[in-house]
Amino acid sequence: MAEPVGFVGLGIMGSRMAACLARAGHPVAVYNRTAEKAEAWVEEHGGRVAASPADAAEGAAVVITMVVDGPQVEQVLLGEEGAVHGAAAGTLFIDCSTIAPADARRIGAALAERGHGFVDAPVSGSSPKAQDGTLTIMAGGSEDDFARARPCFDAMGENILHVGPLGHGQTVKVISNTVAATNAATLAQALVVGKATGVDLEALVAVLGAASSASTMVTLKAKPMLAHDYTPLFRLAHMLKDVGICLDESAAVDAPFPSAALARELYHAAMGRGLADEDFAAVLEAVEGLAGVRL
Amino acid sequence: MAEPVGFVGLGIMGSRMAACLARAGHPVAVYNRTAEKAEAWVEEHGGRVAASPADAAEGAAVVITMVVDGPQVEQVLLGEEGAVHGAAAGTLFIDCSTIAPADARRIGAALAERGHGFVDAPVSGSSPKAQDGTLTIMAGGSEDDFARARPCFDAMGENILHVGPLGHGQTVKVISNTVAATNAATLAQALVVGKATGVDLEALVAVLGAASSASTMVTLKAKPMLAHDYTPLFRLAHMLKDVGICLDESAAVDAPFPSAALARELYHAAMGRGLADEDFAAVLEAVEGLAGVRL
Amino acid sequence: MAEPVGFVGLGIMGSRMAACLARAGHPVAVYNRTAEKAEAWVEEHGGRVAASPADAAEGAAVVITMVVDGPQVEQVLLGEEGAVHGAAAGTLFIDCSTIAPADARRIGAALAERGHGFVDAPVSGSSPKAQDGTLTIMAGGSEDDFARARPCFDAMGENILHVGPLGHGQTVKVISNTVAATNAATLAQALVVGKATGVDLEALVAVLGAASSASTMVTLKAKPMLAHDYTPLFRLAHMLKDVGICLDESAAVDAPFPSAALARELYHAAMGRGLADEDFAAVLEAVEGLAGVRL
Amino acid sequence: MAEPVGFVGLGIMGSRMAACLARAGHPVAVYNRTAEKAEAWVEEHGGRVAASPADAAEGAAVVITMVVDGPQVEQVLLGEEGAVHGAAAGTLFIDCSTIAPADARRIGAALAERGHGFVDAPVSGSSPKAQDGTLTIMAGGSEDDFARARPCFDAMGENILHVGPLGHGQTVKVISNTVAATNAATLAQALVVGKATGVDLEALVAVLGAASSASTMVTLKAKPMLAHDYTPLFRLAHMLKDVGICLDESAAVDAPFPSAALARELYHAAMGRGLADEDFAAVLEAVEGLAGVRL
Repeated sequence: MAEPVGFVGLGIMGSRMAACLARAGHPVAVYNRTAEKAEAWVEEHGGRVAASPADAAEGAAVVITMVVDGPQVEQVLLGEEGAVHGAAAGTLFIDCSTIAPADARRIGAALAERGHGFVDAPVSGSSPKAQDGTLTIMAGGSEDDFARARPCFDAMGENILHVGPLGHGQTVKVISNTVAATNAATLAQALVVGKATGVDLEALVAVLGAASSASTMVTLKAKPMLAHDYTPLFRLAHMLKDVGICLDESAAVDAPFPSAALARELYHAAMGRGLADEDFAAVLEAVEGLAGVRL
Repeated sequence: MAEPVGFVGLGIMGSRMAACLARAGHPVAVYNRTAEKAEAWVEEHGGRVAASPADAAEGAAVVITMVVDGPQVEQVLLGEEGAVHGAAAGTLFIDCSTIAPADARRIGAALAERGHGFVDAPVSGSSPKAQDGTLTIMAGGSEDDFARARPCFDAMGENILHVGPLGHGQTVKVISNTVAATNAATLAQALVVGKATGVDLEALVAVLGAASSASTMVTLKAKPMLAHDYTPLFRLAHMLKDVGICLDESAAVDAPFPSAALARELYHAAMGRGLADEDFAAVLEAVEGLAGVRL
Repeated sequence: MAEPVGFVGLGIMGSRMAACLARAGHPVAVYNRTAEKAEAWVEEHGGRVAASPADAAEGAAVVITMVVDGPQVEQVLLGEEGAVHGAAAGTLFIDCSTIAPADARRIGAALAERGHGFVDAPVSGSSPKAQDGTLTIMAGGSEDDFARARPCFDAMGENILHVGPLGHGQTVKVISNTVAATNAATLAQALVVGKATGVDLEALVAVLGAASSASTMVTLKAKPMLAHDYTPLFRLAHMLKDVGICLDESAAVDAPFPSAALARELYHAAMGRGLADEDFAAVLEAVEGLAGVRL
Repeated sequence: MAEPVGFVGLGIMGSRMAACLARAGHPVAVYNRTAEKAEAWVEEHGGRVAASPADAAEGAAVVITMVVDGPQVEQVLLGEEGAVHGAAAGTLFIDCSTIAPADARRIGAALAERGHGFVDAPVSGSSPKAQDGTLTIMAGGSEDDFARARPCFDAMGENILHVGPLGHGQTVKVISNTVAATNAATLAQALVVGKATGVDLEALVAVLGAASSASTMVTLKAKPMLAHDYTPLFRLAHMLKDVGICLDESAAVDAPFPSAALARELYHAAMGRGLADEDFAAVLEAVEGLAGVRL
């Protein structure tokens, strides 16, 4: 039978990922800051409402966290009422949040001191993929911990990649997001150049999506940009956080990433326009401001 | 029955495109600077070897050119023995080369003076797509000229887009190629950052291809970059030519394209290493040189 | 006695430079497209009004040109009524305009065929330095031609530098102007960052001018930027022309100049706002547009 | 008579600044981690060797710190044996180190809680200016605190600027250093472009120093760059720290500084070559690596 899991963080992504685990036969104890969400989740998927992260860890072989940032992970794992206080020796912790690699390593060291395993396993893919259990999961940690985490990963994801030791899941994730952000900034500029030259923008987008310029960013962001529709799929502030972690990582090893550094400044300029909670496609606003051209 | 076509330029792309026309039932007269190629082509596909561009235009309703750059198009159309000297009044000329939009407009004006139509119709896709007649074709010109060109386009391509008046096919094409070049430069930097941070590069590439960072450039260029294999699919010098045309176009309308301008400098640095005839994936060499890191 | 000089182009700079030659004892024949300017000049400084560039060259040992761009230099030297048609064999031509190095070399070759010498000698310094004969002159050409040009240079300038063979005067000039333009763009960004952080901008400018950040651009452009005062000392369109020549030169030898390439895009964005005839300090407007912040 | 001063940090700059205070009549108690330096200083300049920062603050009206970074300032002021433990109520603290503005504000708040004043007052100028008391000092703090600090500033500096409230001295300092770093990176690129085009580099440097491209960076760094002589006047690692603080500050207010962001990547690439302790002119090595060209 599938191992019991404690799951902390029932946001848009987390609630769907936990449901995949329940469907795969794992007994799941869920904790969420807003208790109503946990109760509704249990009503739908079964399992148990936990009163605290520590309570979620009681009787669990695996504890999974899906929260906003490093400080939150630290709080729900190691803080007062943190999961570590309810966990039996040798529990495996899996963090699916996107946090700084250094934070992951520090948390992993704290858990190791208490005899627990830890895998950092950020995910890629939006809510439909979380729903279907077809996320891409990039995991960092020891071979043993990865092997133990595998059944849970299989329940939640489709592309499961062991990318290196602890922290490397995060590093790969933020590099990937930074490439996406840079591609989106390039796309915004291409559209503004297209506008200025007078070409038909619908036709330009069709070509960008069909030729060697094609990318997930063209597929997802070109039409919203043409419409100035920034309904958030992934917020500008969150993308900028991830790009910032990536450039901190590359700076820490003195590796240059000039195209991303330039793109980051465009995202900051968009943030400065009060667009933090809009989709990161809103980087277009900064490019339009620079050019003095509106699509 | 399909209209007779004169076809000038039997390179890797041109020979396959002309073959599509022959298969679709067009009588084709082919001209190539190296006559042997034209003779071999006719042996395989039928049609007629032309002694000059002017000869290729004799009896043709449509003349298609697929050569290297603007000066060559001008030469084979308007020069001594150029196609215009063999063409009946009201011939439709289609140029599938990638040239400067201003060149396209100037050539179109010269043809219009003589009573001919002109469409600029650069293509996207490599030789397999030329072979199968599944190219993306982005055409600029009048509605009437585009309608007349349509049967030929249908024989050679799959995505046929009328993107605006004469010259706009070229503009869209070079913007598209510039986005591809910029994405590839970003990819090269991401790989070098990945190397410096110590993540598993195969895993990084797998994630880059599966997550929101996915792009045709990741699909086509990431593995060759890891292997430092620059077997040319599209030469660095040709890509840099197209990026140069794009930035000349954006400069002409004073639209900024900073991410592409930065990428261009990386491609120049790769050119300066003597890599003009390698695939443009060789931009990696410049990034490695900057970082002092080798994948 | 000082050699007779033909002088073509009596703009803001040229009229003052020709006056220096007259003061130094050179008999000067002046040609200007608008004849009134030539007549007024002769009234004030003596010498002779020439009816054409060819006429200006009659009896001259040295012909100096100070016009707008390469095509104009070609026209007044080699065109119909061009100076070459009035020049005795072995005349020395000096072009003080800023033009593309390739243009300088092509013109020099055409003059050499006719047995004339040629030096490209762009100048640095604004009208007060032209007035006082204290310009910086950077000359390209043979040792012999440079030696022959020396007395005229001494009349017009203070820092006289022989920087290499023909065309290299231009190359050095445009590199120098490009460094100035890049420094000015950096300054504009620093001021906008200062504004956003809330520091006192007058104090910031005082520090920028006193610390290791000091530059001629801080001295000349910081206060006009704070005042949004773009009274032209050197027009944006002219600066952008020079930066363009520099980047064409660096591209021709495949040398990367990413900081200048980025700055150029900011200048284009300012041009796109209709500021071509303002001082190039107006690059600030593009930076403000990007940031959404006004000083 | 001049007020008694406690001075912490007798490095290259600090020892000279403290000497200026002694010459101006201030009784000075000096503390340095390596006690020998403090003893030698007292032998030469008089005053008193302090056994700890707390001891240096005993009987002082003003305590000045000149150490490496924010954590060090925090340690010597607020840590165990920190100056605050020896200071009488109402002591004025002046920090002349370059640290993050946020650190300055946090330290200032801690001092204010104990009833002390605080001014952040980073300096610009190298050791000769520290020797002569001709530094540029940019101070942040209240009007009252600035007025109280004035006599000490007058002893050490020539350009004394009150640039705003607490922390703004640091902000102005790091913006200024970032402009210098960016100008130096631009200079390095200009030299590499000059080399690639074949112009005489000595002549190029002469023009860069005489024309509108002139800057303190050309004056100080061009010749060392030509000679690949990186004898440290200001270490690459320190410059990169300051640029990092500046870009953190601009990011915190979402103001874009793309030219500096690009330059920073070049400095990282130089750091990655093991040049941390060389002069920041060593950014040239990264540019040469990018270009594949050596001066």
